[in-house]
Amino acid sequence: MRTPAIILNFKTYAQVDGDGALSLARICEEVQAETGASIIICPPMVELSRVAHEVKVPVFAQSVDLWETSARTGHTTLSSVKAAGATGILINHSENRRGMADIEALITACREEGLTTIVCTNNINASRAAAAMGPDFVAMEPPELIGGDISVTTANPGIVRDTVEAVGEITSDVRVLTGAGVKNAGDIKVALELGTVGVLLASGVVKADDPRAVLMKMAVGLVQ
Amino acid sequence: MRTPAIILNFKTYAQVDGDGALSLARICEEVQAETGASIIICPPMVELSRVAHEVKVPVFAQSVDLWETSARTGHTTLSSVKAAGATGILINHSENRRGMADIEALITACREEGLTTIVCTNNINASRAAAAMGPDFVAMEPPELIGGDISVTTANPGIVRDTVEAVGEITSDVRVLTGAGVKNAGDIKVALELGTVGVLLASGVVKADDPRAVLMKMAVGLVQ
Amino acid sequence: MRTPAIILNFKTYAQVDGDGALSLARICEEVQAETGASIIICPPMVELSRVAHEVKVPVFAQSVDLWETSARTGHTTLSSVKAAGATGILINHSENRRGMADIEALITACREEGLTTIVCTNNINASRAAAAMGPDFVAMEPPELIGGDISVTTANPGIVRDTVEAVGEITSDVRVLTGAGVKNAGDIKVALELGTVGVLLASGVVKADDPRAVLMKMAVGLVQ
Amino acid sequence: MRTPAIILNFKTYAQVDGDGALSLARICEEVQAETGASIIICPPMVELSRVAHEVKVPVFAQSVDLWETSARTGHTTLSSVKAAGATGILINHSENRRGMADIEALITACREEGLTTIVCTNNINASRAAAAMGPDFVAMEPPELIGGDISVTTANPGIVRDTVEAVGEITSDVRVLTGAGVKNAGDIKVALELGTVGVLLASGVVKADDPRAVLMKMAVGLVQ
Repeated sequence: MRTPAIILNFKTYAQVDGDGALSLARICEEVQAETGASIIICPPMVELSRVAHEVKVPVFAQSVDLWETSARTGHTTLSSVKAAGATGILINHSENRRGMADIEALITACREEGLTTIVCTNNINASRAAAAMGPDFVAMEPPELIGGDISVTTANPGIVRDTVEAVGEITSDVRVLTGAGVKNAGDIKVALELGTVGVLLASGVVKADDPRAVLMKMAVGLVQ
Repeated sequence: MRTPAIILNFKTYAQVDGDGALSLARICEEVQAETGASIIICPPMVELSRVAHEVKVPVFAQSVDLWETSARTGHTTLSSVKAAGATGILINHSENRRGMADIEALITACREEGLTTIVCTNNINASRAAAAMGPDFVAMEPPELIGGDISVTTANPGIVRDTVEAVGEITSDVRVLTGAGVKNAGDIKVALELGTVGVLLASGVVKADDPRAVLMKMAVGLVQ
Repeated sequence: MRTPAIILNFKTYAQVDGDGALSLARICEEVQAETGASIIICPPMVELSRVAHEVKVPVFAQSVDLWETSARTGHTTLSSVKAAGATGILINHSENRRGMADIEALITACREEGLTTIVCTNNINASRAAAAMGPDFVAMEPPELIGGDISVTTANPGIVRDTVEAVGEITSDVRVLTGAGVKNAGDIKVALELGTVGVLLASGVVKADDPRAVLMKMAVGLVQ
Repeated sequence: MRTPAIILNFKTYAQVDGDGALSLARICEEVQAETGASIIICPPMVELSRVAHEVKVPVFAQSVDLWETSARTGHTTLSSVKAAGATGILINHSENRRGMADIEALITACREEGLTTIVCTNNINASRAAAAMGPDFVAMEPPELIGGDISVTTANPGIVRDTVEAVGEITSDVRVLTGAGVKNAGDIKVALELGTVGVLLASGVVKADDPRAVLMKMAVGLVQ
């Protein structure tokens, strides 16, 4: 994953049902091409393979249930997301919390499979724990700010800086992302100044009246 | 859903990772075209949209997490599977058991959205309960026979007949499917004679050396 | 379980932490002795054995995780609640929803062990499903009214009457309870007139300034 | 928690249903009195309050569901186990895995409430993660050895030593316990030599023909 980066989590918003996912993915592809910004997209689970086959943007899975192939109706295996075209996964998003043992097993399995891992966390101590298991990235997002109007970089820049520092004390191999309420180029600029290597976006782009315009401004901000 | 029918659950077997799902879906499309048999397929979740866009076989989702659109990273909404092209869903498969309240809510939501519902059950009493909530189909599969070598129609034909009768006592609007270990045309013939309107298949086809040959024989058996 | 009955669910309110559970259980014992009303209590899980050993009121478990004895740290088995002195269990409370297959297995296991079962449900269709599995009682509680100020008997008497009728169509062996917002003798009178054989109480008594006075009035109402 | 220590997890074995829990707790009390060994017991959840009121051995909860008091039928709150007499909790036992975010929240809440925390882990990386969240103890138990006949100290002493070292690199404030298959004084001796401050026991004592004799030998071994 090239950094600094924008990770755009499509979540399960109605806007990205069906063709909506592919449309937004194509916007991301264009913005990436025009700005050179590193943009990673996480489409809805059922659109993962279709989107990955149609666009030239790195695709991550929003989640993976199982790290071993087996007969598990309705669940998602690591091998299936890799075969679908994903090159990384989000683990433990606040809307999809995972067991500590599962997180460790997923990180280990992804390392063997060559998939990039982003472990989401909600505070400094959980970020330390995530870092101790050796993922590629820790993405710290205060849950109370997710989906809201105020960026974590405005509401609580201290927690971002302290997370970067705390993770650095555990290991120098894990880099930090942040997110929650991030909506414009200024938020991104502050996030990078605080020591992170990128941001997680979702509602600010997916639910925007003009997702292309919003994403373009942030992508420009990222690479300046 | 046209009956009698074969519902082929791809599960998460390695054989249907990535392009494997589309290949098997195309085999189903061909067998359906050649035999006229009603075949419904349930591809891996991450291949759902891609498969539904590429083949002309009815596609059902192996599962749905949520019946309301909302921001839920890594989960799957009813509207997303419908928009992806699914026309029905499997609910409560033995590998994906659901709460009774969730099953009821899913059935109700699917009815409003025009999606077909198949509620999987493990015995007669659970089949009665499922039927009482008004899905389109109840699919009774003894868990100890799932994925095994002996068909439910051989191991325990009585439980199939009794399920058909018990469901009929609850309502005349719900039809019965069965499954578990079903592997050949003879098993299907017996299943239909016992009063069901079709079978759930999985490993017998997905893991077969020659899935096309196996499915073809069963499709022929279904329509004879 | 002698009917008509009041089932008092202590839940996990701070008022019933530690000795609070035993105090409230003794109030129930006194009210039962004075009025002759049938009162069943469901203390916090960790107080179950202690309360059951100290008072002469029927004690039900708020929940049971497992119906087979096994090594499962932190979970609760059917045999352990029976050995602790419980004579019945609440299954599938809205704050503790269970899988349909688990509900069926628990009902069956309780029948073998001689424990009374109350399956909680949230609407008419779920009540039909619960009844179809043959518990002793179905307790219908609209979730939006639980813990609130308006009794289900006032807010929606029709759903109570319709539940009694719908359950009766499935089987004559299962009786109906109701609950949610029930707070006084008048609510109980209406509940019985609508065809139920009792009510589930919780916050209206547990959080009352004078639980004894509140429960006494309702117990008197129950037996009038 | 006085160290070195034996933590005896009663789990949900049939032997500790009902009065069995109290009987075993009294054996622990006697062995502690005779040997001076520090013994902590974790009775079945429904016996927690009763046992804590009857014996003078430190009692820990096998698990806690919630760290905030609220209306949650069938679940267990931190305040309820503390009020019942518990002075610590097991978190994330292999039979009761928890989300990383929940583990962090429980540790933080226990620290505020003055309860001792033992976080169970399954390997070195998970132990590092647990340590990074600042519990009092990390108890590393290879899952494949739990409940078995071969002690972790025999099967894999290296993983115990490496866990002690790895945890020490994260923080000097967290001490290490181990467990899985520990059955005699020799196993305990090795566990202490490898740098742990105690062991988790379960089946080796609970299911023994003579639990008193088995525990006595291990307690003597602990304090020698």
